[in-house]
Amino acid sequence: MSSTAGLILTCKAAVAWEAGKPLIIQDVEVAPPQAMEVRIKIKYTSLCRTDLYFWESKGQTPLFPRIFGHEAAGVVESVGEGVSDLEVGDHVLPVFTGECGDCRHCRFSINGEPVNHFLGTSTFSEYTVVHSGCVAKINPLAPLDKVCILSCGVSTGLGATLNVAKPERGSSVAVFGLGAVGLAAAEGARIAGASRIIGVDRSSKRFEEAKKFGVTDFVNTSEHDRPIQEVIAEMTNGGVDRSVECTGNIDNMISAFECVHDGWGVAVLVGVPSKDAVFMTKPINVLNERTLKGTFFGNYKPRTDLPSVVDMYMNKQLELEKFITHRIPFSEINKAFEYMVKGEGLRCIISMED
Amino acid sequence: MSSTAGLILTCKAAVAWEAGKPLIIQDVEVAPPQAMEVRIKIKYTSLCRTDLYFWESKGQTPLFPRIFGHEAAGVVESVGEGVSDLEVGDHVLPVFTGECGDCRHCRFSINGEPVNHFLGTSTFSEYTVVHSGCVAKINPLAPLDKVCILSCGVSTGLGATLNVAKPERGSSVAVFGLGAVGLAAAEGARIAGASRIIGVDRSSKRFEEAKKFGVTDFVNTSEHDRPIQEVIAEMTNGGVDRSVECTGNIDNMISAFECVHDGWGVAVLVGVPSKDAVFMTKPINVLNERTLKGTFFGNYKPRTDLPSVVDMYMNKQLELEKFITHRIPFSEINKAFEYMVKGEGLRCIISMED
Repeated sequence: MSSTAGLILTCKAAVAWEAGKPLIIQDVEVAPPQAMEVRIKIKYTSLCRTDLYFWESKGQTPLFPRIFGHEAAGVVESVGEGVSDLEVGDHVLPVFTGECGDCRHCRFSINGEPVNHFLGTSTFSEYTVVHSGCVAKINPLAPLDKVCILSCGVSTGLGATLNVAKPERGSSVAVFGLGAVGLAAAEGARIAGASRIIGVDRSSKRFEEAKKFGVTDFVNTSEHDRPIQEVIAEMTNGGVDRSVECTGNIDNMISAFECVHDGWGVAVLVGVPSKDAVFMTKPINVLNERTLKGTFFGNYKPRTDLPSVVDMYMNKQLELEKFITHRIPFSEINKAFEYMVKGEGLRCIISMED
Repeated sequence: MSSTAGLILTCKAAVAWEAGKPLIIQDVEVAPPQAMEVRIKIKYTSLCRTDLYFWESKGQTPLFPRIFGHEAAGVVESVGEGVSDLEVGDHVLPVFTGECGDCRHCRFSINGEPVNHFLGTSTFSEYTVVHSGCVAKINPLAPLDKVCILSCGVSTGLGATLNVAKPERGSSVAVFGLGAVGLAAAEGARIAGASRIIGVDRSSKRFEEAKKFGVTDFVNTSEHDRPIQEVIAEMTNGGVDRSVECTGNIDNMISAFECVHDGWGVAVLVGVPSKDAVFMTKPINVLNERTLKGTFFGNYKPRTDLPSVVDMYMNKQLELEKFITHRIPFSEINKAFEYMVKGEGLRCIISMED
């Protein structure tokens, strides 16, 4: 047990007070871990589109003040009662998939007033308290400033391909959306040995970068008047073997399903749609032996599976460096939001140490 | 080679001259098998809903005169050039999945005038010519008056469950539509060891019969005002593990998908929809890790796999007797249409020998 265990800690966190307004870095109090919880010293965090989405609060009830952040890596600072599989000093990735929903106001406060957490992790803080079920213990040799991005987006895309779409060596894969998640899906296809990886995006500037992730062909949706599934079917003699949809755009979802080859094609939906969207297709497209699947966090079980994804990076099978396009100190965290809003780069690593 | 090889044969066939009008049993000329074709002496045939559908010609361009029938068993009478894997005397099931589409007027004629075939098989005739690629050679000990129903409907339902839905032992399966195909899907679930099989139909009279096929629970769609997926989710603590849709009704298709449990549920579409139907669902139902699949002929490769389905019957694993509710001589073939139109029974075996 460290000397801070059981005590309220005061540390710096980036607090969002209003939708779309810059975060304020300020002192917050972090409660000690309760039963089955751990308190983590965040070393590196990164910004994911989900943070941006909830920060903008365009589709949801705004919930402020709030500490965002869920892609991160850190070190266990103290553990609560009953935690037997994690120790002080363990290198860990917090993972959002364990949001309990019944502790909205716990953990953080400012001058005694509660601050909302985000996805059970709130990694935009020097210290955060996370349920031990939402913490993956990883190889202590792994560089935290790189593997922090495995907490969410990259694992989501990678797992969608490797665990759900499962392309065979030599097969063709279409990836819709060439942001970090889509490029991670492409990286998965590259690792699986797909021989043709078709990147689909509305912006051509993505294509050069995408080549590094194994993308061999590019379809710019804004250059075609007809359904993209027709364009892809024509390029591939009837359809691709697999597709992975990472935009959440409903038209792309339908195209991703209909562009897979009948008889064996599998389409995997990853992108989160707007709440009024409806997926529509002729039933014959299903009956012709296409498969439609959805996935959440790439079907990885976080605690069981994330350590092996970290090892894929350590074995140089998975390349994480190419996802990291910016690095900033915590004091400049609002720049990460600016990059994402402008569509610049992929992942921005925010260092809590600088 | 039999003595009739290479000669035009004259035999009795049941010819449909007009949509919805009784078939006329009359002499037809059957051409000799061409290269890679075989001529089969049909022993037993049965009526499948697809025959009825095209005979009624409600949704398609009528094509008459025509010889219907595609569920059947027979014996090879003669073989065309190049056929090396089938011999005169082989017991066979003709299978419809090899319709070539470019020989509409071949094979049959009446007084020299061509008669349309149906699904490449036209088994409502004492003799028929089928491409050798559409013929499955089976165990000669298998009773043809029973295994003839494996040519289409029963294999379609059985394979949808065993090859595509793949329920685990002890799991729950919902089957939409308790006709022959749906009950074959239930039979597949029973064989796979499902512990709960929920039959969904709009007619309660189906339920008693369905119990013989392993159906344990019944949902009558006409007794509920709310979506059937809600009813099933409530019965099963969140949804069934697998579902198989055998009606072709678009609302049932949507219910079949949405009634499977999130996280692992798999829905399989079998029933053929009307051509204007659109499958619609909220993308979140996919993203929550449900899988939607379609299948054609239960994913069986006819020549490779049908012999083993026949063996499942011979090993008493698969029970075919309970599907056979009527038997009639060929001369009374129109009775089979009457039974099906009235919804009486499951399969009517038509004997060419009596």
